[in-house]
Amino acid sequence: MRWSKSYLFTLREAPADAEIPSHILMVRAGLIRKVAAGIYTYGPLALKALRKFEQIVREELNVRGCQELLMPMVQPKELWDETGRWTEMGEGLQKFKNRNGHEFCLGATHEEVITDFVRKDVKSYRDLPFNLYQIQTKYRDEIRPRFGLMRGREFLMKDAYSFDLDQEGAERSYQLMREAYQAIFTRLGARFVVVAADSGNIGGNRSEEFHILADSGEDQLLVSEDGLFAANVEVCPALLKEENRAASIDQASAQGGAPEELATPGLKTIADLAKSTGLAPEQLVKTLFFMTEAQEPICVLLRGCDEANPVKIKNALGLANPPRLLLDQEVKDLTGAWPGSCGPVGLKIPIYMDQAVERMDNYMVGANRDGFHLKGVSHRRGHFKVTQVGDLRLAQEGDPNPQGQGKLKAYRGIEVGHIFYLGSKYSQAMEAQFLGEDGQLKPIEMGCYGIGVGRSIQAVIEQNHDKDGIIWPPSVAPFHVHVCMLDPEDSQVQQWVDTLEKELFAKGHEVFVDDRAERPGVKFKDADLLGFPLRVNLGARGLGQSEVEIVERKSKEIVKVSPENLVETLLKKLGESQ
Amino acid sequence: MRWSKSYLFTLREAPADAEIPSHILMVRAGLIRKVAAGIYTYGPLALKALRKFEQIVREELNVRGCQELLMPMVQPKELWDETGRWTEMGEGLQKFKNRNGHEFCLGATHEEVITDFVRKDVKSYRDLPFNLYQIQTKYRDEIRPRFGLMRGREFLMKDAYSFDLDQEGAERSYQLMREAYQAIFTRLGARFVVVAADSGNIGGNRSEEFHILADSGEDQLLVSEDGLFAANVEVCPALLKEENRAASIDQASAQGGAPEELATPGLKTIADLAKSTGLAPEQLVKTLFFMTEAQEPICVLLRGCDEANPVKIKNALGLANPPRLLLDQEVKDLTGAWPGSCGPVGLKIPIYMDQAVERMDNYMVGANRDGFHLKGVSHRRGHFKVTQVGDLRLAQEGDPNPQGQGKLKAYRGIEVGHIFYLGSKYSQAMEAQFLGEDGQLKPIEMGCYGIGVGRSIQAVIEQNHDKDGIIWPPSVAPFHVHVCMLDPEDSQVQQWVDTLEKELFAKGHEVFVDDRAERPGVKFKDADLLGFPLRVNLGARGLGQSEVEIVERKSKEIVKVSPENLVETLLKKLGESQ
Repeated sequence: MRWSKSYLFTLREAPADAEIPSHILMVRAGLIRKVAAGIYTYGPLALKALRKFEQIVREELNVRGCQELLMPMVQPKELWDETGRWTEMGEGLQKFKNRNGHEFCLGATHEEVITDFVRKDVKSYRDLPFNLYQIQTKYRDEIRPRFGLMRGREFLMKDAYSFDLDQEGAERSYQLMREAYQAIFTRLGARFVVVAADSGNIGGNRSEEFHILADSGEDQLLVSEDGLFAANVEVCPALLKEENRAASIDQASAQGGAPEELATPGLKTIADLAKSTGLAPEQLVKTLFFMTEAQEPICVLLRGCDEANPVKIKNALGLANPPRLLLDQEVKDLTGAWPGSCGPVGLKIPIYMDQAVERMDNYMVGANRDGFHLKGVSHRRGHFKVTQVGDLRLAQEGDPNPQGQGKLKAYRGIEVGHIFYLGSKYSQAMEAQFLGEDGQLKPIEMGCYGIGVGRSIQAVIEQNHDKDGIIWPPSVAPFHVHVCMLDPEDSQVQQWVDTLEKELFAKGHEVFVDDRAERPGVKFKDADLLGFPLRVNLGARGLGQSEVEIVERKSKEIVKVSPENLVETLLKKLGESQ
Repeated sequence: MRWSKSYLFTLREAPADAEIPSHILMVRAGLIRKVAAGIYTYGPLALKALRKFEQIVREELNVRGCQELLMPMVQPKELWDETGRWTEMGEGLQKFKNRNGHEFCLGATHEEVITDFVRKDVKSYRDLPFNLYQIQTKYRDEIRPRFGLMRGREFLMKDAYSFDLDQEGAERSYQLMREAYQAIFTRLGARFVVVAADSGNIGGNRSEEFHILADSGEDQLLVSEDGLFAANVEVCPALLKEENRAASIDQASAQGGAPEELATPGLKTIADLAKSTGLAPEQLVKTLFFMTEAQEPICVLLRGCDEANPVKIKNALGLANPPRLLLDQEVKDLTGAWPGSCGPVGLKIPIYMDQAVERMDNYMVGANRDGFHLKGVSHRRGHFKVTQVGDLRLAQEGDPNPQGQGKLKAYRGIEVGHIFYLGSKYSQAMEAQFLGEDGQLKPIEMGCYGIGVGRSIQAVIEQNHDKDGIIWPPSVAPFHVHVCMLDPEDSQVQQWVDTLEKELFAKGHEVFVDDRAERPGVKFKDADLLGFPLRVNLGARGLGQSEVEIVERKSKEIVKVSPENLVETLLKKLGESQ
């Protein structure tokens, strides 16, 4: 492909809304252009990379017996009503009415549509098992789309759905897809981890996420030192550190009388209180307020050193979505005091307590009166009633490994894949049943499995770039070789480039030729920005000296070869890099 | 591929809403399943056919220098406001608001988005020309979706857009795409015609449609006997037949006085009037009423034998969309009489006259009084004022060829492609300009080019089927060979099938094996329904007699060969059929 025949416009400047390197580079390299917030056009180069990744996905799924189909993006409300997700999915599900007043949504996921598809055909146990997938455009009305394709509204996704006779079969299907995903991200050439995860409003009993590691990743992951345990912080069990276990027990053994009100003017934060009382944050208790989707306020008690984990709270309460923190005014209306002076004593709402607080006694909490705290408070002595105790806080780096020895280490990751064991959540709600060998009607056991196709491409760029541009992994590089044609009008140069292009193409390698009338410096800069694995600098002077430069994009290593050895050397290097 | 490992469920019964053979067969063969009116899931076999056709489209476009990209399905209102089409497209454009109150639509076409994409990058004449295309899902809120993928709401389309320096360049791009389309539909293996067409609300100066010929086609096409002229009836010029030219002149020469009211109780249709007066329908005048999109009623006069052509009326009046016929009550309110007793005399609204009426004199029209007509009426003698005379009627089979000798012959077609020369309609409205070699800012000259991908697949089925099922053209057949494994448990049969599958696959031919535990009759019926080009009946008895049957799906011709010659014979037949 010649640049002069391509639709390709690189930019010197990053767009104002691009915050992370991959987003900046994708726009500068002409890969994507914004149409509206979270909505992009993929340019020809981006599409080539996407298609290569799609092909990897297809091959790894097909070889495992999965079959590709294509479901619609527009879906009728009726199907979503059957599972209750029309309401449960909230405003992220983009809904609309057509001219006849019928209600539809844009597919944010396809469990309802695939279950409907399957229940129309499947009758007997003989029809199972199978796994169906599609690569298709999805839409979610993200509140705050950002980071380019990382958190877009419209996005390309591969979604697969497995259908099995029983739990055992479903577990096999789940493991097979887990293997497929490991093969896919390995072939992509990405550094990734698999972590235990929350099932969100997809549902089901078990799920794992695949994360490409990158500093700008939106998710925090905790991995044990031996690498055998890994979890998204959302679901990572939080264990007490050795030293705190002792401290808590000391605290718990302290005796105490009735709570005593204490004027604490101006002391609103845990830091203020710690400073004023001389206690460590882990010896203090903080009181937070959340609202559930049923509009019921709840109170959550944590140690002063901990952060609430809304996903754990959601799961402890059996909610569909994580609860939201109350606004200051809502707290004031509820407790009579502004945040900073609130506590659990005297509240009429459910109180949830993190398990690290359960061990404590004789602590200080807000008095629900501005500028006052209570001291000597204890749930053990009935000063307030605890609805439920549980693991409600965020685990942190340095916390003990919940499944072995050693401590947890923190990473940041970009979620590119998610696999779910669903059980019969959808098949029961939608009556997708089969007649078993025993003559009984049974719901199909399901699993679902997603890969963010566009997000994966951006994530490998986020993981593989330097200050000059993208460093494409060969697996999805739009082109393998970038020829900077230094004297595009020179007939000898033209001849060598033509030959190079043909010979490499015959071996399955795609060559991009910068044949523009630009200075070498401009061409080199653009080559670094575009980031194809190998660059060839081919000009009249070099040919005169029987010398051509090959530059490796990743290492920036330069090798000089004679024109006669060029193709051979390139093929060797391309072989090595794959 | 083995049936036992496939997701494939054939149906004996046609669904109730399937009216035409291709729709019935696609559902029966498990190719598509309805999700909602006009919205379908494509099963694995359908997707294989679609992908094969997409590949043909890609190859023919890429070889002509077109470049593939991917634009979003969700588009912001702001872009459509720039061209005025947010309003002009009417209710077919599916609009919605997101959670922030921003307005969007689902892409029914992408002129606005591509023009926006291009205007951000293109600066100079050096950046032109180029042609960008995508294969993508579109959505139109069809009032009455029907015929499966023929008139769906959600559909797969290839849309290409050319950008040129000037009219001459744009004309070359248009011709190149015309050639590409001819190559594409030829490779598809369809019988098709290219006809002059209306530009609808896409706009521009010139357009042609590609139609796959089929009796159930929604469009009527008129083609000259010599094949050199072809047009959609919507735009086909209507010429008077030889005999009517004479008749009209006779009529025109008749003398007459003032109009005279005549009681015509119960005479409401042209047929009634013809019977009662003894005049032929072509000697009578009928009065129709339409409403424009600006809510202005108009009157249209035609001969009794002719039908109004709303597209010609739209173009004569310079409207964006064809006007709609008034309801009976609207006619009554407007004229004082019910349809059947209405006429142009005394009306205060614009009156448009078909050119066949212009030649007439002394004719009969409704009196705008129920049960009465006027006779001896003539526009030539000022009985009413004609706003405009033009070609406003539908041409018919047997009409003279407007561009040569002979008569027109009628065909029915399914529109599968449409090419438009747009000029600068979009580039002017959206300021997509470039700096010319002469230093002047100029709007880019554009063209746009669509192919209905899903509709093309259904159209070839509509064109290629018999009472037993589909007859796939080899170009897009999901599989090339269908093996009916008659004794799937027999190890010799299994061995021969395995070998057959491998050897054909090595030559690039895909084999589908019916390995179900079903009776031969069931398998043969399903093979005919699925319609892959060649069927092989392979069973233990045949092998015992050293005999395997090959059945050609199209001709139903049976050839018996020895198992040793099977692969060779199949390869020869497959070579022939491509």
